[in-house]
Amino acid sequence: ARPLVEETTRHASDIFTFETHENALINASPFGLHTAMFIPTIRFQGSVEQQKHWLPLAESGKITGTYAQTELGHGGFVRGLETISKTATFDSKTDQFIIHSPTVTSTKYWPGGLGLSVSHTVVIARLIVDTKDYGSHSFIVPLRSLKSWKPLPGIELGDLGLKPGLNGTDNGYATFNSVRIPRSNMLMGLAQVTRHGSYSRKGKAQAAYSTMVLGRVNIIRVVAFQLAQATTIATRYSTVRTQGYGQYNEAHTELPLMSYRSQNARLLGLNAQAFALLFASKACMTIYRETKDATSYLHALVAGLKAYATRTAADGAEDARKCCGGQGYSNLSGLPEIVSLVTPQCTWEGDNMVMYQQTARFLMDSLRDVEGRKLHPSLSYIVDPAYSSTLPGVKRAAKAPTLHLPETHLALFRQRAARIIRSTSTAFAQTSATEGVPTAWNKHMLRLIESAKAHTEVFVLEAYISHVAAVENTAVRLIMQKNCALYALISILNSPDFFEHGFLSHDEAEVMRNLVDDLLDKLLPDAIALTDSWAFSDRNLKSAIGMWDGNVYETLMSWTRQLPINRNLPNEDGGAAGAAWREVIGPMLKKARSVGAESASEEKIRSML
Amino acid sequence: ARPLVEETTRHASDIFTFETHENALINASPFGLHTAMFIPTIRFQGSVEQQKHWLPLAESGKITGTYAQTELGHGGFVRGLETISKTATFDSKTDQFIIHSPTVTSTKYWPGGLGLSVSHTVVIARLIVDTKDYGSHSFIVPLRSLKSWKPLPGIELGDLGLKPGLNGTDNGYATFNSVRIPRSNMLMGLAQVTRHGSYSRKGKAQAAYSTMVLGRVNIIRVVAFQLAQATTIATRYSTVRTQGYGQYNEAHTELPLMSYRSQNARLLGLNAQAFALLFASKACMTIYRETKDATSYLHALVAGLKAYATRTAADGAEDARKCCGGQGYSNLSGLPEIVSLVTPQCTWEGDNMVMYQQTARFLMDSLRDVEGRKLHPSLSYIVDPAYSSTLPGVKRAAKAPTLHLPETHLALFRQRAARIIRSTSTAFAQTSATEGVPTAWNKHMLRLIESAKAHTEVFVLEAYISHVAAVENTAVRLIMQKNCALYALISILNSPDFFEHGFLSHDEAEVMRNLVDDLLDKLLPDAIALTDSWAFSDRNLKSAIGMWDGNVYETLMSWTRQLPINRNLPNEDGGAAGAAWREVIGPMLKKARSVGAESASEEKIRSML
Repeated sequence: ARPLVEETTRHASDIFTFETHENALINASPFGLHTAMFIPTIRFQGSVEQQKHWLPLAESGKITGTYAQTELGHGGFVRGLETISKTATFDSKTDQFIIHSPTVTSTKYWPGGLGLSVSHTVVIARLIVDTKDYGSHSFIVPLRSLKSWKPLPGIELGDLGLKPGLNGTDNGYATFNSVRIPRSNMLMGLAQVTRHGSYSRKGKAQAAYSTMVLGRVNIIRVVAFQLAQATTIATRYSTVRTQGYGQYNEAHTELPLMSYRSQNARLLGLNAQAFALLFASKACMTIYRETKDATSYLHALVAGLKAYATRTAADGAEDARKCCGGQGYSNLSGLPEIVSLVTPQCTWEGDNMVMYQQTARFLMDSLRDVEGRKLHPSLSYIVDPAYSSTLPGVKRAAKAPTLHLPETHLALFRQRAARIIRSTSTAFAQTSATEGVPTAWNKHMLRLIESAKAHTEVFVLEAYISHVAAVENTAVRLIMQKNCALYALISILNSPDFFEHGFLSHDEAEVMRNLVDDLLDKLLPDAIALTDSWAFSDRNLKSAIGMWDGNVYETLMSWTRQLPINRNLPNEDGGAAGAAWREVIGPMLKKARSVGAESASEEKIRSML
Repeated sequence: ARPLVEETTRHASDIFTFETHENALINASPFGLHTAMFIPTIRFQGSVEQQKHWLPLAESGKITGTYAQTELGHGGFVRGLETISKTATFDSKTDQFIIHSPTVTSTKYWPGGLGLSVSHTVVIARLIVDTKDYGSHSFIVPLRSLKSWKPLPGIELGDLGLKPGLNGTDNGYATFNSVRIPRSNMLMGLAQVTRHGSYSRKGKAQAAYSTMVLGRVNIIRVVAFQLAQATTIATRYSTVRTQGYGQYNEAHTELPLMSYRSQNARLLGLNAQAFALLFASKACMTIYRETKDATSYLHALVAGLKAYATRTAADGAEDARKCCGGQGYSNLSGLPEIVSLVTPQCTWEGDNMVMYQQTARFLMDSLRDVEGRKLHPSLSYIVDPAYSSTLPGVKRAAKAPTLHLPETHLALFRQRAARIIRSTSTAFAQTSATEGVPTAWNKHMLRLIESAKAHTEVFVLEAYISHVAAVENTAVRLIMQKNCALYALISILNSPDFFEHGFLSHDEAEVMRNLVDDLLDKLLPDAIALTDSWAFSDRNLKSAIGMWDGNVYETLMSWTRQLPINRNLPNEDGGAAGAAWREVIGPMLKKARSVGAESASEEKIRSML
């Protein structure tokens, strides 16, 4: 796809380290974690000598690796590190570590490629020297004989079986029964254990932290494309597919699905959202490059955005699938696969509820100390009096004549976020004083999550507006401004928080609904062009109903006839239908026919004569 | 399951005609449409002689049938009937109909069992006598030889391949190339064609209409159970699963997922919703039994409720799946299958957007003629002055001290619905006057759909409140009242429409949020009992993480080890891993190892020594 190549060449980005050529996250391949996690972990956490040994082996493909952190009983990304119960105990006599799974819950469970495909893995395990527990560290553990591919002694490996998607990857499990590895297999770039068992830390864990943030930024990018894939398929299909004569049978020929407001509002809205996620990921990437190290602000921002983007894309892809009626439920449409690839992104690399709370924690901490130090500039709107009124009618940025303007939309987004964040901060502080901080956190968790979401949406709209304003081509800029306005207005109309404070009236909501109506009318003729702008190839979408040429029905019948189950039907044995008949249906029907006095003849059964 | 048996015996219901023993819709089986559609169609549309001939054959299992209406290019339930382009032309010389698929889009596509499993089908086709088109009628068409199971001459049959779920059913396609059937194979209970080609209608289509409504009522019931299945699994898992020490590392052992407010709010909320759908389906069934025939009110009510229930259950089941983190993405959790069974219910038997519009049409028609005739009693609240004020502050049923009461919740639901329906009706009438009715419908479609949804929610809450009030056991009634209040309050807090008119203030929203918090605290200790009350067996749920005994991890590892892909790993050939090694990974790694001057030894590759 053109945008991918442009990204790669123009920005020298590492996109294919994280993303497949079909815009799935790289762990859709059994060797994805080899490039995305195994090699980077060695690079960031290995000593110079370790890098010299392992990197050429891994980079040349002489060995294949994965990254084994998640356990059967322990997930979570950062917190998970603290709860891992698998142990690596140092045996100073033999100069070895003993990797051991002490419990069923410490079984390594989920790592991609572990089931069948990797020779090595990074194992995250608790480091124990003498009786002292130094917490989680990284070890390189060889898993399989390179001759027989059998698990090495003491290691049990297996596959996790079918999932809704990603079945091209062998997510697997591993247990270790006192498996010995040399001391030098502990990655020693950040921490060291000497021959005599003395432990020392060196350097900061910042680099690993930075990889994690980069990974999440890439997820935001990937899900933008996945939402756009689903929207492209559904938009193309809805343009070809006709259904009904209208509610009043007013049309003389059947109308395209896309002409119905319920359909075009959903699909144009989803496309406007996909752009929002793409621009937000670009804005994040810019901050990441500028700050180089992952600051706590960037970390908090990316956490919230990861949650917002993945949930928006997952819900949106499923809605696009529903827009295609029955055909959206056939794998031949390509839509079920996209949904199955985007939904797990809400879970991995940090569950969305945990992610939002990390953002919320940053917001609450920032506000608590606001008098003692300066707020991060991107948070200053929260304490700006222009955005912080909680009294209805006192300060209203949104007057009906300005409701179409991006600056009004942004003001509304900021007001909403400022109100939620401030009222949550106040309530949280009050409860903390009486019931303690942890109880207060749990009690206000839902509003803390809403605070994080509202702040994230401010960032997304800022990125959208500034990205669109920078478009040089006037025609393109005008149409992108409409998409941006559509995104903002739909977001406002669907969120109770914009209305709760009486800040927006019913009349203003009516004005906004008319604006949406008008934007949809104006964008509708460009619906195909807007989805084509993502430049997906037929090869990328793999959808019988979303082909670029719009030849939906012939393609669908052709692909159906090509299915393996239908291939052998005309043969003498009748293929799958013949087998079903001989083994199940035939005996069942014959048994029924032999019951009762009268046995029905073939002729009588075929027809009533 | 106990409730199912109770339903069947106490209410003499036909539940297993529509539902499998695992609470899936009956078309999860290839022979489901035989009992749910093929036999009822013959019963309702066949003449007495036709019933005598076909019913014994079908009921005894001598033949198997399905129902072929949907075509490649034409879906929709009622409207679809008018757009079907497959033709049945009467040939008076031979006294036969010629069933023919004139276009690729007229290919029958989707009927369950068509791929491999049925001998006969009802075909819905346009009846043409001489050159006159009498519209859609039903014909019994034999499809396969009962000796060889091969398609009869002129018929092509095949399977549609994989879908996200329901792969136990062979959804299929059929094309007909001038296939002749005797005239007597047209179902003649409601319309007749004589030997000489004269056509007459007799009776009403009411019976078929009634079946359709009954089918939708059963869908509402099925999805309530499916949502409860997902919630039960997720609640059991969340009680066993621990994660983290709290946001402030305040705990000494890891906390159960269920103790986090974000988790228990979602799961208790989903369980409260599942009850709502169940009670709404029961209330519908009562109306259906009392009215016997499907009135236009019942039809409109059931249409909206079908849309509301299926979308609520689909979103909810997916959210319950997400609540289980990584394990929710494994088929062993049972959750992906439930999601794949509930989501298509938003599409079949009437797409949800079409369904809501049927309700909206009834609402708009009722309001337009309100002066000329009496409104249906269940709509009277719309014009009741107590509920129709659009001026903020004039009439407020919801004062903070009463915000916990069911009558306040119902008043708020009615006020919200009345306001949306009336303002939409006014706007629709105004646009109709200037731009014509069809244009107005399309322009206001989004608000028309919201009107239908708001009215549907009034019905659901009425059913919930009255069902709970009738519970005799005091302890059960008290806990169900809490569920009902939780359902109502969450619905209010999540919908902008409750706030748009300034009817509820920010302070009142805060009161409601505190009430939700309090209800969650009170319901949390009974979370397991509440999900156990659905009485699902382990056999029904088929979930390694949702077993009744809570033995999550041992079950999960045991089921993982039992997977076919892992069975042969210890054998000499290494099973699937051995095959992967010999065919793909081994050659790849060996090739990489032979590149370059130095060839790495096994020992060197295993470890750095």
